[in-house]
Order: sequence, then C-alpha cells, then structure tokens
Amino acid sequence: MTEFQLIDRIRARAPTRDDVLLGIGDDAALLRVPAGRDLVVATDTLNAGVHFPDATAPADIGWKALAVNLSDLAAMGAQPAWCTLSLSLPEADMAWLDAFLDGFLELAALHRVALVGGDTTRGPLSVCVTAHGLVQPGLAMRRDGARAGDEVWVTGTLGDAAGALALLQRAGAVVAPVCEAAPMLPVARSGAQTVPPALRARLDRPQPRVAAGLALAGLARAAIDVSDGLLADLGHVACASRVAIEVDVAALPCSDALAEAFPDEDQRRTMQATGGDDYELCFAAAPGARDAVRAALADARMAGTVIARCTEGGGVRAHLADGSAWSPPRSGHEHFVVESRAGD
Amino acid sequence: MTEFQLIDRIRARAPTRDDVLLGIGDDAALLRVPAGRDLVVATDTLNAGVHFPDATAPADIGWKALAVNLSDLAAMGAQPAWCTLSLSLPEADMAWLDAFLDGFLELAALHRVALVGGDTTRGPLSVCVTAHGLVQPGLAMRRDGARAGDEVWVTGTLGDAAGALALLQRAGAVVAPVCEAAPMLPVARSGAQTVPPALRARLDRPQPRVAAGLALAGLARAAIDVSDGLLADLGHVACASRVAIEVDVAALPCSDALAEAFPDEDQRRTMQATGGDDYELCFAAAPGARDAVRAALADARMAGTVIARCTEGGGVRAHLADGSAWSPPRSGHEHFVVESRAGD
Repeated sequence: MTEFQLIDRIRARAPTRDDVLLGIGDDAALLRVPAGRDLVVATDTLNAGVHFPDATAPADIGWKALAVNLSDLAAMGAQPAWCTLSLSLPEADMAWLDAFLDGFLELAALHRVALVGGDTTRGPLSVCVTAHGLVQPGLAMRRDGARAGDEVWVTGTLGDAAGALALLQRAGAVVAPVCEAAPMLPVARSGAQTVPPALRARLDRPQPRVAAGLALAGLARAAIDVSDGLLADLGHVACASRVAIEVDVAALPCSDALAEAFPDEDQRRTMQATGGDDYELCFAAAPGARDAVRAALADARMAGTVIARCTEGGGVRAHLADGSAWSPPRSGHEHFVVESRAGD
Repeated sequence: MTEFQLIDRIRARAPTRDDVLLGIGDDAALLRVPAGRDLVVATDTLNAGVHFPDATAPADIGWKALAVNLSDLAAMGAQPAWCTLSLSLPEADMAWLDAFLDGFLELAALHRVALVGGDTTRGPLSVCVTAHGLVQPGLAMRRDGARAGDEVWVTGTLGDAAGALALLQRAGAVVAPVCEAAPMLPVARSGAQTVPPALRARLDRPQPRVAAGLALAGLARAAIDVSDGLLADLGHVACASRVAIEVDVAALPCSDALAEAFPDEDQRRTMQATGGDDYELCFAAAPGARDAVRAALADARMAGTVIARCTEGGGVRAHLADGSAWSPPRSGHEHFVVESRAGD
C-alpha cells in the first residue's frame, strides 16, 4: 500500500462537476468560477483526540471534517462547490480510508460538492479540509453587520453535541480508548449505548445549515455558525459589529432528547450556551424582517428562535427570563489555554 | 495564550490584497476572481519528522509550507494570489508562531500572496496550506499534454536538497533530536555546520519557480514540479500523457556544491534522479519550441536543461550517456510503504 495507491483510491471515488476543469491527479485543481460570483473559502482541521474522540468511527470523522467546513460556508450564505482533502494517517489503511470516504462523500453528495484535490501523508491522524463556495457579490453574511436593535436568531436546537460528549465522558468512553494500536476502532460502543442516538448524531454527523444560509443571504445582517459555543461565537459577532448582545438563556432552543438526558436546567443551559459543536447558524436581523426571516427558514425547513437582542455597547451578557444575570462556569471552547510565559 | 490570541497575531501580520473582500476573522474568506481567469487550487500538508527534520527552524518550516504549494501553482503556470494556513501546534507558543510567520510571510511577500484564512488547533506539529492561483483559460500546464517526440526540460539543478538531507543524516542530526520536549529548537546546529549552506538552503528554503511557470504557460505541453523525485514525477507525466520518457541521467544538471560534497558520481545521480524536494519545474515541449523555451526561461532568469525525450510507449527509463540502462537503488519518495495485508 503506497501513498499513490491511496490517492488513486480517493480519485476513483471522488465526485466531480462540470465546473471542475481538472480534478485530482495533477499538481493543482483547475476550477471555473462563474461570472458574477465571488469565491468563499473556509479551511478547518480536525485532529484526533482534540476535535473528535479517538473512538469515533472513520465514516463519522469523514462526515464531520467536511461538515464543519460546509457550516462555515453556510454561515456566509454561500453555495458549496468544491473541496480539497489533506489527510494525515499513521499508516496506509485502505479499509479505514474507504470507511472515512463513505462518510465524507455521503455529505459531499448531499450538497453537490466536488472533491478536487489534496494529499495523503504519514502522520498522527489529522484531516484538513478546504471548502470553496460561491456567493453573489454583496450578499455574503459577515460577522460585522449587526446593529443595535437587531434581533439575534439561532436555527434548530443547541447543546445536543455537548450533551453527547458529556455522556461519553461520563461513560469513560472518550478518555480511555480500549486499544491504543487501533484508536479508530469503535471502542466506545459500550459507552455509545448510553448516549441517546439523537444526541450522538448531532456530535458525529452535524448537519451544515446550507439551505438556511442561502435563504438568509441578503436578509440577515450578520451571521456565524455555532462551533466554539454560542456565547463565544456571539462574542465574535459583538466584537466585529461593535454592538452588545443580550442573550436570554431561557429562550435557547432545546431538543427533547437533551431535556430528557439532562433534567438539571442549569447544567443543560451551560451546554447550550457554551458547549459548542452545534453547527447551527446564529444571525442578526432587523425586527422588521421577522416575517421574512420566518418565511426564509420555512423554505429551508429549519426552525428558528429569537434568543438575543443587539444593543449599544459591547460584549455579550446572558440573563434569565426574569432579567437576572446568568453566568456559565466556563465560556467557549479554546484549543489552547496555557500559562502566559515571560517573553511571550 | 489562547487560540483566539494566536489568530489575532496571525491576522495582525497577514498581508492582504485589493481582491480580498474579507480576509482572516470571519467564518470564511471572500475573494474576487477576476473575469477571464480560471482558479487553480493546490493543497499540501507538512508534518514534523516526515516532511522536514524535527530540528528545522520554525521560519524555515513556514517558508517551506508555503513554497511547496506555490511550486504546485508554478507547475500549472498560475499566478499565485491567496492562501489559507491551518496550523496544528503542540502548545500555543507565540515566539514559535512569530518565527514561523517570519518565513511564511517573507515568501508570501515575494509573490504577493495574501493570507486570507485558516485555523490554529492543538495537535502534533502539522502545517496544511491551501494556495490559490489564477490562470488564463486554456493556458494551464497539465501533466497529460506531453507527446512522443517532445523534449523534456528541467529548470535549475537537481539533488541539492537530497544531498543536504543525506549530510544531516550522516551527522546524526536528523534522526535523533537532542530535546524531545522542544523538537523545534535548532538542535541540529552541530550537524548543520557540516552541510554546505548552498545545499541547506535548497532543503530549507526551496524557491518555487513561479516566474518560470508563468513564462512557460502556453509554451510547454505538460509540466510538473519535482517534489517526489525526478523519476517518480516523470512517471506521473508519462502515465497521464501516455508516453514513454527516456531520461539521460548524465545530463541531469548538478550544482557545484553538490558535486563537491558528493564526488561519487553514482551516489550523486541517485540523489538527483530520486531524492525529491527539488521544487524545480520539469516540462515537455516540442523540439521546435526550443528557442522560445530558452527565451522564456531567460526572461524568468532560470537555467534550463534538456534531460529526456518522450517516445511512443509508456513508463520511464533512465540511461547513461553511452545508452546503457541506469537504475537507481530506489525510485521516488513514498510516504507510505507498508506490507499489504489480507483484506486490503
């Protein structure tokens, strides 16, 4: 098994499109951007043990690696078009690769995304995807367009992925893979049985809200996808838009599965407000656009909930229904939190 | 030190361009592709200990991570425009990041490449870059256009990077980093002193042949950059173009530094023919285009040498000046060479 054989395998299974003039197998891909469209580019890496539990099934890793990037395109209101895949693997394992591609290509097919290039290298398991989308000039949803008075919406429900992860951690399935030599085998199956499938699916198979993003482009003033945790992500919007955002944590939409698995309200709210990995869209729109937003979301078959308001000022504040302040035990997801050192 | 602080640091130092409508700091970058240009996309990951010695200086890692991608664009005849950077680091180290950016951004500035997005994550040291370039429709140099009768050229000289690596290995500087906890410190300095600077520069600071690629677009019938090793890369061209390629190994251009460091001719030829990491352009052109090729290369201030001929058939064969066959001890660079197992 060689690197070239892995690439041949990926090439044989990779979907293409008419606007791909040259796909996998040359020094670079050659792509035709249609006239009257701007290019939207997102890139995200998933590392084993950091972005997904070591025990995650390869097909789920494949799905998620593409999903998190399509979610970024969705948050811009872009139509996905092409992607590249850079895959670092501890060893050349065709069975693993095929399972990985099953998930990756299943999602790619759903959104008509062509896999146009990439590389495979030896190294600790890591997946870097760059996704390309197209948007009409002037319609992209940025983070910096929210204004005081805007309502802040979120699609779907929040906290399911964090709930699934918490249950996996509680079952000991995440921290200690049974077999170090084959970390990608589904060693978490016993733990997995303690996680309701509806929650587990949100962790392993996030659905990028592409249709909602397309429907909202030109309607929402600012948007972001919820990946780091709602409050942290709203912090990015508040900072970029120079507004304050007042979040009603009692309004955060919650799935039945999450409510059932976590009866404690404050624990649940913490997951919803700070857990991350939701991949819902969070966006600001004028109150006058409320009906248009509802209609757009209905077209995209997505629920939408107003969870916050933009006001003059800066920062993000969370409050309960009675107006009293609410604080999570931690705020947002950070890959690095280390001591600052002399010289830094 | 947090992930967001690292991103802020990168953002503060990242160069931009007028065609970048939105760069680092949103869910995705927003880019304007000029009318009448196709998009060229290359992506390559460098992993510590696989693609560069653990002891490589961070600035050299930064330079090389971008260089290998710009080299792919050059091989297509594309003008580089934008890139994304996905950086996995064992810890959030601002001093390391700044040194890395010194090299990365030095090369980006040379080619007016804007850094428009990416991410930073915790994980074993790994750098994934996606580079975007622009090319006139129909002018991109592919691997599949070579024809029987074509001459095969290479820019510059071959084997210097392989020679540097061999000298580092001989000095024991590559296999055994002194300090595992700080693998990126320049622990190879004692070994490095045994490597002539001219060779070391080819390993650590490869120069993507962007100007040569632009000058050759429309003139060369097929092109590839020499990264896996000349014979392996010519194999890709032979396969894609359905021609045989007869290589005169005695004609392979050799630097004075390499000739001095490796007096043994066969050892040197092996490095030149199979060592890889050269990042020269190798291209096929009609014999009638010889003068035009020389003029184009002169414009790009690059030397060029005819090293092979395309003939009917398939595969790559190497011969000496007297026509006798020449075989290297190994052929090309493979990241994975493992035993095939039952079920694969």
